[in-house]
Amino acid sequence: MDKLYRNAQTLVDRSIRENMPQAAVNTALKNHVFAGSVYALAIGKAAWTMAKAAGETLGDRVKKGIVITKYGHAAGSIPGFDIYEAGHPLSDENTIAATGKAIELAQSLKDGDELLFLISGGGSALFEKPLPGLGLSDIVDINNQLLASGADIVEINMIRKRLSAVKAGRFARLCAPARVFTVVLSDVLGDRLDSIASGPAAPDLSTVQDALAVAEKYGLKLNGKRDYLLEETPKSLDNVETVITGSVRTLCEGAAGIAAELGYTPHILTTDMNCEAREAGRLVASIAKQINRGAYSVKAPCAVILGGETVVHLRGRGKGGRNQELALAAAGGIAGLEKLLILSVGSDGTDGPTDAAGAWVDGATLGRLGEKGLSLEAVLDDNDAYNALDALGALIKTGPTGTNVNDITVILSA
Amino acid sequence: MDKLYRNAQTLVDRSIRENMPQAAVNTALKNHVFAGSVYALAIGKAAWTMAKAAGETLGDRVKKGIVITKYGHAAGSIPGFDIYEAGHPLSDENTIAATGKAIELAQSLKDGDELLFLISGGGSALFEKPLPGLGLSDIVDINNQLLASGADIVEINMIRKRLSAVKAGRFARLCAPARVFTVVLSDVLGDRLDSIASGPAAPDLSTVQDALAVAEKYGLKLNGKRDYLLEETPKSLDNVETVITGSVRTLCEGAAGIAAELGYTPHILTTDMNCEAREAGRLVASIAKQINRGAYSVKAPCAVILGGETVVHLRGRGKGGRNQELALAAAGGIAGLEKLLILSVGSDGTDGPTDAAGAWVDGATLGRLGEKGLSLEAVLDDNDAYNALDALGALIKTGPTGTNVNDITVILSA
Repeated sequence: MDKLYRNAQTLVDRSIRENMPQAAVNTALKNHVFAGSVYALAIGKAAWTMAKAAGETLGDRVKKGIVITKYGHAAGSIPGFDIYEAGHPLSDENTIAATGKAIELAQSLKDGDELLFLISGGGSALFEKPLPGLGLSDIVDINNQLLASGADIVEINMIRKRLSAVKAGRFARLCAPARVFTVVLSDVLGDRLDSIASGPAAPDLSTVQDALAVAEKYGLKLNGKRDYLLEETPKSLDNVETVITGSVRTLCEGAAGIAAELGYTPHILTTDMNCEAREAGRLVASIAKQINRGAYSVKAPCAVILGGETVVHLRGRGKGGRNQELALAAAGGIAGLEKLLILSVGSDGTDGPTDAAGAWVDGATLGRLGEKGLSLEAVLDDNDAYNALDALGALIKTGPTGTNVNDITVILSA
Repeated sequence: MDKLYRNAQTLVDRSIRENMPQAAVNTALKNHVFAGSVYALAIGKAAWTMAKAAGETLGDRVKKGIVITKYGHAAGSIPGFDIYEAGHPLSDENTIAATGKAIELAQSLKDGDELLFLISGGGSALFEKPLPGLGLSDIVDINNQLLASGADIVEINMIRKRLSAVKAGRFARLCAPARVFTVVLSDVLGDRLDSIASGPAAPDLSTVQDALAVAEKYGLKLNGKRDYLLEETPKSLDNVETVITGSVRTLCEGAAGIAAELGYTPHILTTDMNCEAREAGRLVASIAKQINRGAYSVKAPCAVILGGETVVHLRGRGKGGRNQELALAAAGGIAGLEKLLILSVGSDGTDGPTDAAGAWVDGATLGRLGEKGLSLEAVLDDNDAYNALDALGALIKTGPTGTNVNDITVILSA
């Protein structure tokens, strides 16, 4: 088991490292040739880190750069860049002002210029400018109405993007005729480009009809804002090139490559896992059993990988996170099995409101829990996975990593 | 899609047919040579059907046979067999009387005789005889105490089997020196022989210490029955041979073989799925997405198979079953995807309290649900999958099949 845990540690460390913002930017820039003058705009929680990496690679080639990130997320100056901090998860006046600077930059671009657009999670809140005639309060009002009426995030975004001067491909339009090279570090499952940061440089998949249907469905009080919904968003953009260099898919593919190097046949089952953490843990354990009895089509030594972001519906008052719950629930199903472990870890290093990134469990975990006088089901019912796993030394701690490309769960079988 | 659904229908029909009690018995008998005189005992809900198949194959070779099944489950006489019906899920006086006849038969067996022991689901309640000095009421009392104190089924069985003259290998001991050839149709996940029908012909894995620990843990009032707990159960049996010819594993393996014949590469992920049905559906859908985008290690056309028995925690007042909930929940995750379907079906043909065996869904299901004015989440919250799937013509109906080897879920991708 020692070797298995050492290999698991390597798998966690290296797969997160390959998906750090710096790595994502460097990978993208290595394969791209800038023709004319280069400008840069970085938005999102990793904006500062991505801009820093771009600045170090491109140096003087960046004529002017702008960073818009969350309060406390800028870590010093970057030569050639203006750095702005703003509200997250709620936009504020600093968001509007900083986005205004980005719009000025966009409108100053000339044919032959190229904008390097670095996008990371949180970009939707951090990059916002209401259309002329609207203020932040209008957006907040519509948002609150939709939330109160039970609309889901896709429906809310269909309305919100029509009130914005920069979302849903509109920012890329402002940059034309200059070209936009977008580098994405994605924290959205499925990597839909019109969803990540509300798609400022991506064609919009929703239509005026969709937006009107949502407004009618929830009896939205538009107070004279109906005309905004009638304005169609860009359905194609001929000045944009986009690469996703960090996402849960690259996290899983990276882990698969590292597992193979370590001698485990890799098998990626999904990169869209989004169910309840505890139940995911049970199902993952049932797959581990199949591997353990040699009845799985991929034979041990193997690494079965699931990416995504599960959810936890809180019922108890304990401390934990989705990865910790998933791992602990899995421990129940693999009790007594040898030569395998199951780990689940968030790439941002902070799973739920805890200082752990996740946890790893094995066939002895359930028994050790019993020795501590703890019942697996009781701990899960109290959402107290952190304290139980901490008592067993089964927490994975990486510290905050500075990236967020969702979570990864691995069955590692020797 | 028509062809995909036709193939799915074939997959469902044939994989259940191969796991019918008759097929299970015939498979077992084909590979077994009886040396001496043959006697037969069939217990469980499929006992009559299994005995009927054995009678047809062995004819006059069966010197005497006994069937103990649930009320209403015998469908006529079988030459050479005495047929008894008794209570299920609760044992009654008919259980005790019929089991007494089986014990008489066991004790009459001589060296060189062989007992064909046919076991199916429900055998734990249908085959019971308290040890001398105990009555049915003693067993009921202990059972109620354990249920009320929150003991789980494994713990309850540790105590119960020690009060029984036939459970936990004791019946096979009564047959010695005659040999016992056990044929099992299993409805227990994991196929632990000491769990199926409480293991009347299987060595017991629990010990006196385990039983005493459970009694202490729950403060069991034993009222003078402590001595029974001190009597060790058989830990090895040298007169027994056991084959499991019907189980969720053979169901999955059968489906895999049929899928391969139909041109789909089969891949069995698990035969132990036991999590919440709705969440399993979500996870299965996320795997289907991976297949659909060509990123799964098994390429389409393929059949990804999961066996087991999920659970439903009722929150609403609707009508449905675990397979229907699983399929409907999966429909949300595969909306818009083409060339694939997901089906989930119970091999007994009755999923929950409904006349459907399960359901199949595809990329169009969610949209069609919307056209009916139904919301997927609302239907699931009300546990009303049956009515929603019925409106879409998405129910799988087989009628009661006469077998029960748990459930199978399949992603079928063209």
